[in-house]
Amino acid sequence: MRIEVINTGSELLLGGTLNTHAAWFGRELFALGLRISRQTTVPDGEPIREAIGEALARADVLLVTGGLGPTSDDLTREITAEVMGIGLITDQAALRSIEDFFAHRGRPMAQANLKQALVPVGADVLPNPNGTAPGVYVPPRLNGRSHCAVFLLPGPPRELYPMFHAEVVPRLRALAGIDFPPGMLTLRFTGIGESDFHQGIDDRLACIAGLEFGYCAHIGEVELRLIGTPEAIRSARNLAVETFHENLISEDGATMEETVVRLLNERGFTLASAESCTGGLIANRITDVPGASAVFTHGFVTYANSAKISLLHVSPADLETHGAVSEPVVRQMADGALMASGADIAVAISGIAGPDGGTPEKPVGTAWLALAARGAETATQKIHQPRNRHDFKLAASQAALEMVRRHLLSGSGTSA
Amino acid sequence: MRIEVINTGSELLLGGTLNTHAAWFGRELFALGLRISRQTTVPDGEPIREAIGEALARADVLLVTGGLGPTSDDLTREITAEVMGIGLITDQAALRSIEDFFAHRGRPMAQANLKQALVPVGADVLPNPNGTAPGVYVPPRLNGRSHCAVFLLPGPPRELYPMFHAEVVPRLRALAGIDFPPGMLTLRFTGIGESDFHQGIDDRLACIAGLEFGYCAHIGEVELRLIGTPEAIRSARNLAVETFHENLISEDGATMEETVVRLLNERGFTLASAESCTGGLIANRITDVPGASAVFTHGFVTYANSAKISLLHVSPADLETHGAVSEPVVRQMADGALMASGADIAVAISGIAGPDGGTPEKPVGTAWLALAARGAETATQKIHQPRNRHDFKLAASQAALEMVRRHLLSGSGTSA
Repeated sequence: MRIEVINTGSELLLGGTLNTHAAWFGRELFALGLRISRQTTVPDGEPIREAIGEALARADVLLVTGGLGPTSDDLTREITAEVMGIGLITDQAALRSIEDFFAHRGRPMAQANLKQALVPVGADVLPNPNGTAPGVYVPPRLNGRSHCAVFLLPGPPRELYPMFHAEVVPRLRALAGIDFPPGMLTLRFTGIGESDFHQGIDDRLACIAGLEFGYCAHIGEVELRLIGTPEAIRSARNLAVETFHENLISEDGATMEETVVRLLNERGFTLASAESCTGGLIANRITDVPGASAVFTHGFVTYANSAKISLLHVSPADLETHGAVSEPVVRQMADGALMASGADIAVAISGIAGPDGGTPEKPVGTAWLALAARGAETATQKIHQPRNRHDFKLAASQAALEMVRRHLLSGSGTSA
Repeated sequence: MRIEVINTGSELLLGGTLNTHAAWFGRELFALGLRISRQTTVPDGEPIREAIGEALARADVLLVTGGLGPTSDDLTREITAEVMGIGLITDQAALRSIEDFFAHRGRPMAQANLKQALVPVGADVLPNPNGTAPGVYVPPRLNGRSHCAVFLLPGPPRELYPMFHAEVVPRLRALAGIDFPPGMLTLRFTGIGESDFHQGIDDRLACIAGLEFGYCAHIGEVELRLIGTPEAIRSARNLAVETFHENLISEDGATMEETVVRLLNERGFTLASAESCTGGLIANRITDVPGASAVFTHGFVTYANSAKISLLHVSPADLETHGAVSEPVVRQMADGALMASGADIAVAISGIAGPDGGTPEKPVGTAWLALAARGAETATQKIHQPRNRHDFKLAASQAALEMVRRHLLSGSGTSA
């Protein structure tokens, strides 16, 4: 089955927006045992016509994203119908759901949104609970010009991803005659890099029959993707987990913050954070997890020294003598957060995010971390992650969450 | 001049690697006044043939990346020459430079690298000081099958980028006869959507000669992109800014948080935040901006009611009577943050991020916001953004930052 993807959007070709859809489709289709034969990006509007016409002549399945909005440069719907030789009609159910979308938000529906309810005659409307643009599926039998099945999908990821899973995947399965996709397991590790896998287990993974594997490195973590038969996946999983068990965050796709919230819940502990250089990112990541309110109580973003003193009772003398990025200060931040919050565990961080503020002794990328817990010695750790400001914050927050994760796994020194 | 880009590489279609070349080429070419008409991604090896053959028939300039390496699936050089009807010969200068590359690193050259010195007869060899694969330029006159000029370029950015600037740009300028590139301006708005533009100014923008425009919607903001002659851009900019002046965040690509930090700096004010449902995201966004430490002092993430009481002195009785998501509570959060921090302005938010915790009176997506400033009445506002947890946090943080931005622009009630 030849599958092509067309992403529409002038912003993708002007370079202001990175095309993340292409890689996302690649991963999603691969999980179904399918591959993309070609991916094309074209500007909004008329240039779509040529690309869609050519793809219809080559492909069995065509996935098109973008251009379903209400404005004058949103022409995917109209052009695709024209190229396929099918008329457009207003779908009443689609119209009602667009009206509902606006009514639900207490906003009037603009005239421009009316055209979003237009669909090729006989096509399936794919509901979009997260936006106004419904998707469209034109089955091969309706397509007068080729044997190609066509999906028109919205561009924004928050609309595209749920629609893909709910509406596209079942139809792709039927088109491809897929029963059991090969299994896929993604293991998430921290504290090691791709090269550790290369040196540690790469050769042995390559010897497992029926296995495909790959790595994907992010800041502060690396994913090992295993695809194949259940036996092959089990062998590979055991090998990877035995070799790097201390570094395993999850086997079910759970993120670091989801894992930390789960462990806190399981152990009945509460957490507080005291952040300087990460500026709220630790708290933000934890509160991204539904149900975090049961385990996360207080977050202190003590960006100014005065905040460290007044909220966390850090000693002004130590701030003066050792500086804000130092072991004594971060230790007092963790101890102070534990006391002020009444939580069971407090994690603290202070560092130099840059681009300014570095010194020869404490270059940009330096951070001190501390973890305080009831009935335990306060632990500290120094890291050096010389990256841009955004990536440094992410790496530093990851190190702090990893400190909490290891503490929770060690089972030491905290009484519920 | 019609320019197409073909990126080769199976990893791009399997989703493990994000295609950043497409956006990079878009920006580089735009700076020269050129646009990409189409970008295509194909797997390594034979699938390249079809895509290159088709592009040669359409394009004036074809830029191909990848597949110039030494391994068996690196076939770009061979396939392109074949499709163009030109033979390959070993270029002695290219061969020497590959040998030098290895000698310089004290490593023996593998037999496989020999083929990297093959170039189409009569083509220019583009030196690669950063790798073994030289680039290739086939001028239109050599191309037996079309009028298209073809560049074959290495895939790794550290090799591609310098080669593009040194070798490709001068040839593109000559091909295009470039003098002055057109201008581009991106205006960023908040509080209005794409359909407001459609109803408000779309028709009038379409009447401006020499103008191309487009919209790109994000959560809590929308970008208007203007491309064209300086006069056309000026007219369009004036129209958009006059119509939606209150909603304009920036004219220079600055984000909401960058704009808020800039305004705080200009006015010499400091800011504190008191967050419940956004869980630190407001603080995190502000501290993403370099230099935020000069204006942002304290962030309170008061996720638990006990934190609202102990850190911000919210009345337990009001929490009991009105609930945490209520005007009295959020007002006290802002007032408490202002007092506890000593900052000039404090913004506070409390809402229901979901997925649980909603009620008929306060459904998921409801939030109350407050802004307190020295010498001013504390202002409050209610929003309803029924979205998933992640998007709700983003939309709610945007509303809070917008409250601060409007306050700073109004110039009222704060003394430096």
